[in-house]
Amino acid sequence: MRLLLNIGIIVALFGVIVACDAVQETESYGGMTDASIDREMNTQYQRVRVTSVATNLEHPWAVAFKPDGSMLVTERTGALKHVRDGSVTEISGLPDINSFRQGGLLDVVLHPEYEDNGWIYITYSKANDGDETATMLIRARIDGESLTDIEELFVQDRYSEPGRHYGSRLAWTNDGYLLMSIGDRGSDPPRAQDTNDHAGTLLRLYDDGSVPDSNPFVGRNGYLPEIYSYGHRNIQGLVVDPETDEIWVTEHGPRGGDLLHRVEKGKNYGWPVVTQGFDYGTQELYDFTEGREMEGIESPFFEFLPTLAPSGLALVNGGNFDHWQGDLLAGGLRPQRILRITTGENEVHHIEELFTLEFGRIRDVRQGPDGNIYFLTDQSDGALYRVEAIERS
Amino acid sequence: MRLLLNIGIIVALFGVIVACDAVQETESYGGMTDASIDREMNTQYQRVRVTSVATNLEHPWAVAFKPDGSMLVTERTGALKHVRDGSVTEISGLPDINSFRQGGLLDVVLHPEYEDNGWIYITYSKANDGDETATMLIRARIDGESLTDIEELFVQDRYSEPGRHYGSRLAWTNDGYLLMSIGDRGSDPPRAQDTNDHAGTLLRLYDDGSVPDSNPFVGRNGYLPEIYSYGHRNIQGLVVDPETDEIWVTEHGPRGGDLLHRVEKGKNYGWPVVTQGFDYGTQELYDFTEGREMEGIESPFFEFLPTLAPSGLALVNGGNFDHWQGDLLAGGLRPQRILRITTGENEVHHIEELFTLEFGRIRDVRQGPDGNIYFLTDQSDGALYRVEAIERS
Repeated sequence: MRLLLNIGIIVALFGVIVACDAVQETESYGGMTDASIDREMNTQYQRVRVTSVATNLEHPWAVAFKPDGSMLVTERTGALKHVRDGSVTEISGLPDINSFRQGGLLDVVLHPEYEDNGWIYITYSKANDGDETATMLIRARIDGESLTDIEELFVQDRYSEPGRHYGSRLAWTNDGYLLMSIGDRGSDPPRAQDTNDHAGTLLRLYDDGSVPDSNPFVGRNGYLPEIYSYGHRNIQGLVVDPETDEIWVTEHGPRGGDLLHRVEKGKNYGWPVVTQGFDYGTQELYDFTEGREMEGIESPFFEFLPTLAPSGLALVNGGNFDHWQGDLLAGGLRPQRILRITTGENEVHHIEELFTLEFGRIRDVRQGPDGNIYFLTDQSDGALYRVEAIERS
Repeated sequence: MRLLLNIGIIVALFGVIVACDAVQETESYGGMTDASIDREMNTQYQRVRVTSVATNLEHPWAVAFKPDGSMLVTERTGALKHVRDGSVTEISGLPDINSFRQGGLLDVVLHPEYEDNGWIYITYSKANDGDETATMLIRARIDGESLTDIEELFVQDRYSEPGRHYGSRLAWTNDGYLLMSIGDRGSDPPRAQDTNDHAGTLLRLYDDGSVPDSNPFVGRNGYLPEIYSYGHRNIQGLVVDPETDEIWVTEHGPRGGDLLHRVEKGKNYGWPVVTQGFDYGTQELYDFTEGREMEGIESPFFEFLPTLAPSGLALVNGGNFDHWQGDLLAGGLRPQRILRITTGENEVHHIEELFTLEFGRIRDVRQGPDGNIYFLTDQSDGALYRVEAIERS
């Protein structure tokens, strides 16, 4: 009992306390999947079973699903892992990745026609000759346990310090474009209103990295043609509704300003001139903030209060989660939870917290082709979990 | 380590899990104050020490502070406790209290001129000859360890089933009126739009229970004169800003509809014709709900998403909480946390979660005359905690 109390005394700088960290429990089992992390629990409408699929992952950032039932997991620290039949192997042949602060190996997705062409898409932070980095997009194939046929498709136009806000989430639209987010790179003052700068944007590309003519700013002076929307601080969750084509993003705002947007083509989402957040230090509006709403700037679909510190974003479509259909599942880092968000036409109707303080910082959330939900925990000994819908007992 | 895991497996029906319940730890110390519950932790801006002042309280509902440094604590199950110098005694002579479901002995406050007149004010649920109850207000004095001079000041006009939504929070306005909330009593259809019914209202009374002529509906046909505002589902948090005179309430909505209001005289807050919530069962709008906003009905100041299941509400004024001045502290039952809410002119600017899953269901939150924050946990072995602001170590 004393142990419980001691754990309770460990304090986190921002008030969120790791009360019981189940992940650490698995260390005694050698790190791999073990029935000890096979927990069933009731949620508001859905009973679920949570199983650890892979453990001992070093700050895993993203998971992708291969048609053969195996999974690819990026570790931010620079390794690409292959999870198959309960074992984890490393894929070699990655490019030179700059793993520093928020940077490193980031997102991974498969081409929609992966079975035909074998392309996987990867983002990461790449360094120039100095201390500056940029968000990079490549595609490659996997041959055995090696990366081959690497093609550099896109790199943001400007390398910069200080190792923050890389964005880098990827998602495919239903008509085959590749969306990619790039954060504002943490510069002061923020660059997200500069449309001649990729920082603070959502981009839309062809699968070979080239720019579609139908992009909103193609041919417009003062705008980079890859930009689909701008004024974003740091989009870390990105998902396309397979039925409605809606593009949902979650992004990190300043304190109090984490946001959910339903992104539309060519729109300005305001950062930093319009924000719902405040300076972390002073608790006041930033000098460069002009207001909380403004003509010509999209208001957020929803503001997360308290903060979510958003990470991966999924949308439930199919599978056995009868009561969750069409809902968003938004991962949260610092608050260590997943929010199930039921949206209406222009507002959030309901939010349920899932797994609060149960598994650790949530880095990615996806729905697999098998209909199950998968999530990653952002820890030095992070893990990949599967969430299955089961009958109430 | 196995214990941790077992505790983790315990599931709560609504997905919120008591991961580590520090309160249970104190049982081995005989239930009274012990340095073992003397925890220091950092929050976003403020380091705090949390100390248990009294334990083994049976579903404590409210705490009031006497000038001699002792405290009165109501237990919903029907006892009034006196907490003094680390010991807890029971005050005898209470009226006949109907303790059933959400009913029982509820709020307690001291008269603003308590030192002169010795009046304490108590609300509770009172039964008629059948199975019906009403929310009752009395005042009384304490002589030794007995209640004396009991006066019945007010009882709601209609006794009813089913033992829910008593409201019953009390607070004094800065000009000496007594505010009292009454819930909608859980009837179907709800009665909160019926202004000839006290259910679903905030009332304003003189200290002897009589009706001030300045009440908004005095002399108006079809309105009970005690009503100050109506259309409330169940106000469980109530505090008056000592500087601005603003009246803040938190109330339980249906699922997804827990609300913060800044109540104004004579206004209609909409329940059930206008609500931000949905039917718990169907997840649809209620039959009797006409919309989410409407002419003549006040929109909420803030909607809690995810749900708060609000309880006691405090407003930080004075004391050593330099970064919390003017903030609301809203207790939450099911989510087991206190929200620190920073308000702007017409919106919530920031929310910080405090003590999530650390102490249990929060039933009341107050700032004591000593400037410290006090809160109660709603459990069969609930406790009274003191929160002090301390220097960062």
